[in-house]
Formats: sequence, C-alpha cells, structure tokens
Amino acid sequence: MTKVAILGGSGYTAAELIKILLRHPAVEIVAVTSRQEETPRVADLHPSLAGRTALRCEPFDADRLIARGVECVFSCLPHGASMSTLPALLDRSVRVIDLSADYRLRDPNVYAQWYGESHRDLAHLAQAVYGLPELYGEEAATAQLVANPGCYPQTAILGLAPLVAGKHVDLRGLIVDSKSGVSGAGRTPKLPYHFPECNESVTAYNIGHHRHTPEIEQSLSDVAGEAVQVLFTPHLIPMNRGIFTTIYATPQRGFSEGELLELYRTYYAKAPFVRILSQVPATKDCAGTNFLDVTVRLVRGRLVILVAEDNLIRGASGVAVQNFNRMYGHEEQTALV
Amino acid sequence: MTKVAILGGSGYTAAELIKILLRHPAVEIVAVTSRQEETPRVADLHPSLAGRTALRCEPFDADRLIARGVECVFSCLPHGASMSTLPALLDRSVRVIDLSADYRLRDPNVYAQWYGESHRDLAHLAQAVYGLPELYGEEAATAQLVANPGCYPQTAILGLAPLVAGKHVDLRGLIVDSKSGVSGAGRTPKLPYHFPECNESVTAYNIGHHRHTPEIEQSLSDVAGEAVQVLFTPHLIPMNRGIFTTIYATPQRGFSEGELLELYRTYYAKAPFVRILSQVPATKDCAGTNFLDVTVRLVRGRLVILVAEDNLIRGASGVAVQNFNRMYGHEEQTALV
Amino acid sequence: MTKVAILGGSGYTAAELIKILLRHPAVEIVAVTSRQEETPRVADLHPSLAGRTALRCEPFDADRLIARGVECVFSCLPHGASMSTLPALLDRSVRVIDLSADYRLRDPNVYAQWYGESHRDLAHLAQAVYGLPELYGEEAATAQLVANPGCYPQTAILGLAPLVAGKHVDLRGLIVDSKSGVSGAGRTPKLPYHFPECNESVTAYNIGHHRHTPEIEQSLSDVAGEAVQVLFTPHLIPMNRGIFTTIYATPQRGFSEGELLELYRTYYAKAPFVRILSQVPATKDCAGTNFLDVTVRLVRGRLVILVAEDNLIRGASGVAVQNFNRMYGHEEQTALV
Amino acid sequence: MTKVAILGGSGYTAAELIKILLRHPAVEIVAVTSRQEETPRVADLHPSLAGRTALRCEPFDADRLIARGVECVFSCLPHGASMSTLPALLDRSVRVIDLSADYRLRDPNVYAQWYGESHRDLAHLAQAVYGLPELYGEEAATAQLVANPGCYPQTAILGLAPLVAGKHVDLRGLIVDSKSGVSGAGRTPKLPYHFPECNESVTAYNIGHHRHTPEIEQSLSDVAGEAVQVLFTPHLIPMNRGIFTTIYATPQRGFSEGELLELYRTYYAKAPFVRILSQVPATKDCAGTNFLDVTVRLVRGRLVILVAEDNLIRGASGVAVQNFNRMYGHEEQTALV
Repeated sequence: MTKVAILGGSGYTAAELIKILLRHPAVEIVAVTSRQEETPRVADLHPSLAGRTALRCEPFDADRLIARGVECVFSCLPHGASMSTLPALLDRSVRVIDLSADYRLRDPNVYAQWYGESHRDLAHLAQAVYGLPELYGEEAATAQLVANPGCYPQTAILGLAPLVAGKHVDLRGLIVDSKSGVSGAGRTPKLPYHFPECNESVTAYNIGHHRHTPEIEQSLSDVAGEAVQVLFTPHLIPMNRGIFTTIYATPQRGFSEGELLELYRTYYAKAPFVRILSQVPATKDCAGTNFLDVTVRLVRGRLVILVAEDNLIRGASGVAVQNFNRMYGHEEQTALV
Repeated sequence: MTKVAILGGSGYTAAELIKILLRHPAVEIVAVTSRQEETPRVADLHPSLAGRTALRCEPFDADRLIARGVECVFSCLPHGASMSTLPALLDRSVRVIDLSADYRLRDPNVYAQWYGESHRDLAHLAQAVYGLPELYGEEAATAQLVANPGCYPQTAILGLAPLVAGKHVDLRGLIVDSKSGVSGAGRTPKLPYHFPECNESVTAYNIGHHRHTPEIEQSLSDVAGEAVQVLFTPHLIPMNRGIFTTIYATPQRGFSEGELLELYRTYYAKAPFVRILSQVPATKDCAGTNFLDVTVRLVRGRLVILVAEDNLIRGASGVAVQNFNRMYGHEEQTALV
Repeated sequence: MTKVAILGGSGYTAAELIKILLRHPAVEIVAVTSRQEETPRVADLHPSLAGRTALRCEPFDADRLIARGVECVFSCLPHGASMSTLPALLDRSVRVIDLSADYRLRDPNVYAQWYGESHRDLAHLAQAVYGLPELYGEEAATAQLVANPGCYPQTAILGLAPLVAGKHVDLRGLIVDSKSGVSGAGRTPKLPYHFPECNESVTAYNIGHHRHTPEIEQSLSDVAGEAVQVLFTPHLIPMNRGIFTTIYATPQRGFSEGELLELYRTYYAKAPFVRILSQVPATKDCAGTNFLDVTVRLVRGRLVILVAEDNLIRGASGVAVQNFNRMYGHEEQTALV
Repeated sequence: MTKVAILGGSGYTAAELIKILLRHPAVEIVAVTSRQEETPRVADLHPSLAGRTALRCEPFDADRLIARGVECVFSCLPHGASMSTLPALLDRSVRVIDLSADYRLRDPNVYAQWYGESHRDLAHLAQAVYGLPELYGEEAATAQLVANPGCYPQTAILGLAPLVAGKHVDLRGLIVDSKSGVSGAGRTPKLPYHFPECNESVTAYNIGHHRHTPEIEQSLSDVAGEAVQVLFTPHLIPMNRGIFTTIYATPQRGFSEGELLELYRTYYAKAPFVRILSQVPATKDCAGTNFLDVTVRLVRGRLVILVAEDNLIRGASGVAVQNFNRMYGHEEQTALV
C-alpha cells in the first residue's frame, strides 16, 4: 500500500484522480490539500464523491505529510504554485507526479518566454522527467519527479511520433488544429466559460501563443533528433470533456493508408492505451478512459492524422496514474480500465 | 420616432432588447448606460451587435438623457439598482419600463420579505403597473411606470389564468414545476453556471423560496379575486434559452380536454402572442420569439398545464417591447415577429 | 467464474453492461447476441469497446449458449422480444436478469392494458421477482428470473418508499415530475431524438400514459400495503444521461426537514447505493455511477422529494449487476464502484 | 408583391426561409410543396410556425404554381431532385433560386465525379449563376437560375478571396478545417445525428471526399484566375447551428496583421454582411443572422484565417433571400436584419 497525497484538491483533475486512486488496490490516499481557509470535506468540494471518501481538505504542510508516511504526491496545483511548493517535498525524498506545467519544459528560458515568469526551481527542473509513458516511460519509472504531460500535447505528440521518428514528414510545416471540451479550462468561473457564452458556439483562442506549443515541439524534437516546429490552434467546443486533434503534415515520400496504419500499429505495439483505429475516432468513444485513439488518412498528397482523448483522464489524471503504476512496479493498466 | 435609452446594457436582456429596438420602425436608441468605468462600444460588450450599432456605453446621467430628448427608458438594471436610479427619471416625466423586480410586488412588506431589503421608492411603487399585457394591458398602456413581468411568472400566470379566473381549480394546491435554460441566471460568471458544472446535468434550486413565487401569487390572486397559493420549484437545464413549465392543478368540476382547450382559446382570443396548442409545446418552437405556447391535459383527475416560452424574449425583452407598443399606440406585434 | 451471455447487444444498456462485466472479477462474458444478420464485432457496434473485447455478436441460439456453459443471461432485448426469447432459457435452468419491461408487472391484465399486447409467458411471469435491490433484494437473491426495474420507476419508488412505508403521505395524490436525458429513449434514430430537434429544447411526453406508471404504482402499493396512485409526467432534457425526479406529496402529519432526512437515512441504512444528501442532488454527481441521490424538502406544507440517478447505470445496467451480485453471493458493490 | 413558392418544405432550410420571407415586405408565399402524400399544414411540419402561417403543403405541380402567378421559386429539394424538378419551371420563365448542389458546379464531369451520378439538366446548368453575392452578385442579379452556395464553401471562399485575389498565398497548399453544428446534416434521423451519439463528442467525417471541396475550388479558381487546390476537413460539433472554419495558408510575401485586416476591409467594403473583426469570431455572435465574420492572424510565418457563420441563414436561407433581393431590386438587407 503506497500512501499518497493530492495537492490542490478543488479542481476537476483532482476529482478524477481521487476517483481513480480510490479504485487502486495498492494506494491509500492519506491527504488532500487545498488553499481554502476552511477545511471542507472533499465530498463537499466534489459532490460526486459523496459516500465514497470521508477525507477532509487540509492546508499543505510538508512535515505533516511526511510524518504520516506519504511516499508519493500528485500535485494538481496551478503552474507557479507547483514549483513554489514541491521543493519542500522533493528535498526530502518524496516522489512527485506534477500535473502542472512547471517541470515540463527543460529549458528555463523557454519557460520564462511562454509563462511570463522566471523558473524558481532550477535544481529539480534539471532532474524532472517528462511523463509521457509511451515515449519516456523507462525514465519516468525511476524518476523522483515526473512532469505529467499536458492534455493537448499528448494528442499532437503521440499523433505525430511515428511519422516524426522516421522523418516521414516535413518537420517544419506541421499544423495542429485541436478542439477541446470546456473542462480543459479548469473550474474557475470566467465569462468565456459561462454556460450561455460557450454553449452553442465554437471559437478559437490563444492563436499562435498557447503555452502547449513549446511542450509539443520539445517532445517531437526529442523524437526527431532535430528541431520540429508546429502551428497550434486550439478551439473551444460546447461539451464537457474530450479533445479532438486534426493534424496536417506533408509526407516526404509516398505512402498508402494501409502502410501508414501499419507504421502506427508497430510503433505502439506495446502501448496498451493507444488504439490505432481504421475508422475516424470520436471523443465520445474514449470519454472517461485513458485511451488515446488515432487514425491517419492520405488526402491530396497530405497526411491527416486524427486523434481523440479524454482531456481529464488521458490528458491529466489517468496518465498520472499510468506514470504512478510504472514508478511503483504495478501493471500499467491498474485502476485504469 | 420615440427616443429611448437602455439602462444597464451589459447583460443578456439588454442585448436582446437592443436587437429588437434596432428593428423597430418608430424607435431611436439614443443611449445605453453601463456602470463600467470605461465606455466600451456596445458592440464590444455584445459582439453579436458588431456592425449593427455604433453606440457607446455611457454612465447614467438623468439630466443628459432628458436633454437629449429621451422619452422612454428601459431599465435592465438589477433589482435594488432600479429603484435607486429610476426616481430621477420618473420625477421628470420620463416613462419607464423596468425589467427588474423592483416595482412588481405592490406590497412593500412582501418585497422586503422576499428580497431581504426595504423598498426605497414607495411613491413610484404605488403607481407602477404590472406589465403582463394579456392581463394588465389596458392599465399598462397609460402607465408612466411599467414593471415588466418576470420570466417564470409569465408561464405560471398565463398558464393558470383561464382556470383561476373561472375558479375551475383548487386555488390553494397549485404546483408549478419549471425548467429553465441557463441564460435566465444572467451573465455574471458563477460556479453553478460554469459550463462543466451545468452542462449534462439537471438540478433544482431555491426550492420554496424563489423570489418569483410572490409575483405569481399576486397576479393569480388578482385574477381570482381571492388569495391563491402556489408551490414553485425551478430547475436548471443545460440549454441556453427557454422555460418549460409543468403545472399541476386539481379541478373543481368535470372537464373534457376539448372543453379545456376551448376555454383557453376563448380566454386568449385577443392575445396574439399566446398560442393554444393541441400538441405539447417544446421550448425550441418558441425560442427567440415573443410567443408563449400552452396546452392542457386531463390526467387521472388532475389537470396538467404545459407552457413554453423564450426566457429572454417573451420572458423579458420581447414583452418589454410589447408593453412599449401598447404605451405608444403601435400595433402590439411591431418589431416582434 | 460465472459464464454469462448478453442478449440484444446493440443498444446503450448493453454497452454499459459489457463495460461493467469486463471489470467484474467473477464473470466471463461468453456471448453477445444480436438480431443483425451479419455478426459484427462488439467493438464495431460500440467503438468505445475497441481494444477491450474481441467478442463478436452472434444470433441467439439457446442450445449453443447452454452448451458453452452459460449460467446467467442478461436480456437487453426490447419488451415483447424478451418474453418470446427467454422461456427457452428459463425452462432449462438458466438464470435470467431481464432489463426489459416484460416481467415487471405481476398482473398480466395491467401489462396488456399499458403495453397493448397480451402477455405471452404467464408461467415465468408468475415466478419473476421485481429486482429493485433496496426493496426486493432478498427475493431477488434466490430468484431464477429477475425483472430488472425501469429507470424512472427507481427514482419514484426509492424517493417515496420511506414516506409510503410509514404512510406519512397521502397515497392518492402523489405527483412525479421527471426529467430524463435522451439516452433513455434508446439508440434507434427517430425525429424527436434527432440532435437539432431535442438539443436546446425541453418538452414533456406520454403525459398520463407512460408505461412506467403502473410499475411505480405496483411497487409503492407493495410498500404501503394498499393501493397507491401517482401522476407521472416525463420530460426530455438535452443531455445524454441522467434522470432528475421531483416528487410532490402531501404529508399526513407535521415534520421537520431534519426528521425527514433522518427517516430516509434510517430507511436506507443498509443500502450502499442510496445516498441521502442534505443538499439538492444534481444528475452530474451520480452520472456514470450506480448511486441514487435523494433529498427532501418541506415547502408550504408539502413535501418535495428530489432524486437523481444515471439512467443507464443505476437505471438499467448497474442495478442489473447489483442484482447479479446478490444472486451469486458477491459483495453488492463488486464492479460497481 | 412577388409571389413565390418553396419546393421541399419539410427541412430546416425551408423553415428558416419561410420565417424570413414572412417578414419580407415585398413577398407573398403562395405555395409550399412537399413530397409527403398527405398535405399537412406547414405549421404541423414546423411547430415554430404555429400561428404564423395558414399554408398547407401541396404536391409539386408546375402548372398550378404558374397559374397562381408564382414568379420565383426557392428550391429546398435535395440534390438530384432539384435537377429533375426545376426544368419544368425554368422552361416557362420562372426564376429559380436553388438551394441544392445541382447547379453549383459548372463542369458536369466534376458533378458526376463527386455526386456519383450524371447531371440530367445540362441546358440549364450552362446558364446557372453561382449565387455567392459578394463575388458573383452582379451576374446573379440578372440570372434566371441562381445556384445558392453551400454552407461550408461560403466560409472558405469568402475567408480566402482577398488573399487569393491578390495571389498573396500559395494556391496549392490551402488547408480548410471546418467545424459545423448538426443541423447542417439535415432533418432526416440517422445514427450519427442521434442525440446521444453526437452530443458530448467531436469527430471528423468525409475526410478528403466531402462534396463541398470542388465548389470551394471552382470559386477560388475563379477569383485567382488559375487552379486553386484545398484540403477540406469537416468536423461535427455538438451544437445546433453554426460553422467555424479555420484556414491555414502560406503567404507569398511579408505581411503585418494590420495590413491583412486592412486588405480584408477594403475587399469587402461594399459587402454589408461580411464583418471583418479584429477579435476572433465565435459562432454564437452570428447565430441566426446573415453575417459572416472573419479575422486573420499571422502565426510563425503562416496565415490563419478564422471565419464564422450561421449555417442555416448565411449558409442557406439568408443568402438565398440576399440573392432574391438583388434579383428583384430590393435593398440587399431587406428582411435580413
């Protein structure tokens, strides 16, 4: 039984994480922290958890967590807060899976450029492993600090990796057009996510400057062994959950669709959560699961790659547990199917 | 050409009102006020108005409005703010259609009890006419101050009036179960109206203490000539617009459904915006219109009345213009079909 | 390991049932039948099952199922088809959980009246147990044929049982106003469930003659020991899943809300899937689970009971597995949390 | 007063068209035809029209329409049916606005290739004018037969025309990624448009072979004076109405965003229904209107053009009336604002 704590318990990813961990046979949730002054019951913050846990939120206190035997911490804190909070745990040998963006970008200058503030924990940043299991699973398994990947980046990276790995496509002209449900924007009420503002509407946002861009490029560049550049356009869709990503790439040689699907199937042969489909995926078919569904089409000389995932499970809390399973030697699918 | 101003221009009812008035052949919108410090263009507050009006929001200034010839003001201010703001106009002969609740309840004690604050404009309250055209249209036509009716109350009052007028039902045991789209909650972002919180969910709220209860009872008591009591339960539905109200009443004598429909058709024979249907209404069929659709069923000895309306048009801005048309001698349907 | 088969595998309840049973540690799904001429893979009918099962649909063949060791069958066939198909299994000692309405109503005359056709399997009807675990769990545990309860009836019956059992309310004047997501209408495309027809709309249907009415009355009459009558009005809500039921009842004596909640908590003390809440339930908080959430309010001398459930899990496939767990001696919550 | 008839009255575009034409001061709707055997009231087919028209559907009969003085016909028939039906009217001098695809593609071979059947009315095809008012408005004004443009193509063509006209972008590598509400799929119930199948989901469809592709290319090639090629990917979004199109293009020279917006503003200076915005459009802001909203961004050396429209009004019935207004000398905006 591994004792774990969840930091930042009031958002959607924390709620999903708690549900998964309550089903995990080898995990005991010891604490859920929250910055709220009162210490509400977790089931008050998340009414779906009524009758499923008696935990109360508590303020963050590293000493107290360690004294209670917490070995592993999942941080659902926002970026900025994670790198301020986690050193106190990392310095005392606690393993951390950080769902924020703070430890994803290896280059602190890139972090500063896209997040508008300097990185404040360079020491641990240097040791962090980007926790996309299908690409970095080995390193993540032994890491102390795993930077859980972003929701959009997983669709772009895993959708392109087989092509980029073989340099089958032009690495400079990749276009990633993503469509996301509104839960991806978090749980803080704001006008663009007010029901009557986003229901029955589609729009694009952060065009050309969404912070997931450098994360996609860093990982695809790792896969390629050279610099990869993407144009990333996220859209807001009137649904709760799911990301659908349509990727356009220019092939460097001739392919048939059969060859392409075979290339993908081979590349992900050992990845239980990546499903290579012959039909076009739909977000409803992976909603609430840790599966990432992919197909690929050849159209007028271009490749169109279509990827779907659940943004809260595969895009955050599910993949965090997938990382946990690898870190603690459990079967990769434990508590996730 | 009547010069009008709209107070409180940032919400949904103001946007709908502006759209209707821009189509009105006898109206010129002279000013839109807002409490915001900057003076944004109306089309910036409401992007749907891009290219349709060059108006800028301005702070409220009674002198300035009067100097510019404003004869009639539509107030979309919230309750409380309306009764603080409108006396300055009413005292100077401006006619007012108030979309807030401030002048709807004749008894200031009832106001204080349900709204939690004392009424601050008893003088004008005494002269206000409740602007439900199908019942109070004559008085409203000559009134200086029209209290535009609430969205839920219209469905309950007009759904029950023909039965209550003839005392065909038990006046003490009326049950009103309403289902409303989220725009009824206004445009201020709050957690219950955050998209992922209310999408894919139904819940009830303010059970037994929704402020529209006394408004329904006041008007039905007028119709009955004696006290009427309702149990009103509002529900929040994951859609932008529309109210569907299901009313349960105990008949005082035997009826056939044919008789009932005939009773309704006769009662509303001169009401162009009340449609008595033989089929069950659906909110989509009156969405965006000033129609209120009604049918009635006889089930196991009870009457079930089913009513649908658009909460922003019929429930607020459309009926406001219907009142305006009566006040200024235009055909009732002008700009509304 | 109990070998089971699922009859009628193409609908939504079958898909949910398969997902639950794939997680069940003591179940092996041996067959999924379908009336389709081809024998598609189950994952082709339900793309969400891609990579999770290799099963193919097959035509129904009682001999073949028995030869393969099927001990228990879940029937997701429509009403009418169930009572034509199941005798061949029941006569050969297979245990059956029937999700259709065919064996729910004990009186075949009532069946004929509401379903418009005579019952064709009176022999087994006489032995069937109504499988609402919280009320009939003991009988269901030893039954050969369990009639799985309807989605709406569970909300009405469990919402009223504590009051009806103690005769705390007028048993003749119960009003049940239900709001259901569209998946409750099944998977066959029809105009009323075409997306643009039901999205952004609310309507009521089958007013006074919905077939779940006698099912509610039969069970509440069992609880009361005398005839109970309800007026049931279902509404269609633009969401995929969930039922929210608002019940109006006239109390026979004075109560406080505290007493009422206590009455409910005591009544359901041993029911792990009934959650008595102090706040108003919302369908989103029990979506995808087997929980049924209830609260009760006292308003102007009436009782208002508010109930939420997931129509596909609690309302069909989850409660079917709950019945299975009781029939086969597993812990009630197995595979359901 | 121009007497008009609407052919094929049962779908969504017909309903919208009737609503607009009922508001048109110079139009009298004389007939609505339908292939249904009975002759239902139009308000029975479209309950939103209750109380607004007493018209009944009738079978198509060219003689009868002409005898009643019909001068202009709007055809909402499906493709294939239009070219079978319209010659009987065209040969007798009736003017036609055809909302189907039958007369949009000038080259009958292209028609045969994409629609899978030979064109059956080559004579009138040769005279048809593609009715996109902003580009072909002059020809359409005097045409007998106007081929009303498709919903998707308008977003792509008008979104790209200013760039293509000046050859400011690579004409061979255009990518058009469109997101459409479900009403675009018509009113016939089918599984992919069944509410629970498309709600809470996004998917792509007809990748590389959507029939609007050649229509986009034909018109952009007209604008460019040389062959233009697009890769078009449509997506289905869980909302009723609206199309949002994201276009990716490679510029042939350096631009600033200011220059680009200025280029667009100049190009559409006389187009009252094209709104060039500095902010990103959202479908909700043009829903229910004939406006097409556009902005353009420069990202990492590429141009991203973002376009929104209402698929039923701007995409079909509104632009049909815009064409009508030009054909009959009315102000372009009559009945459309």
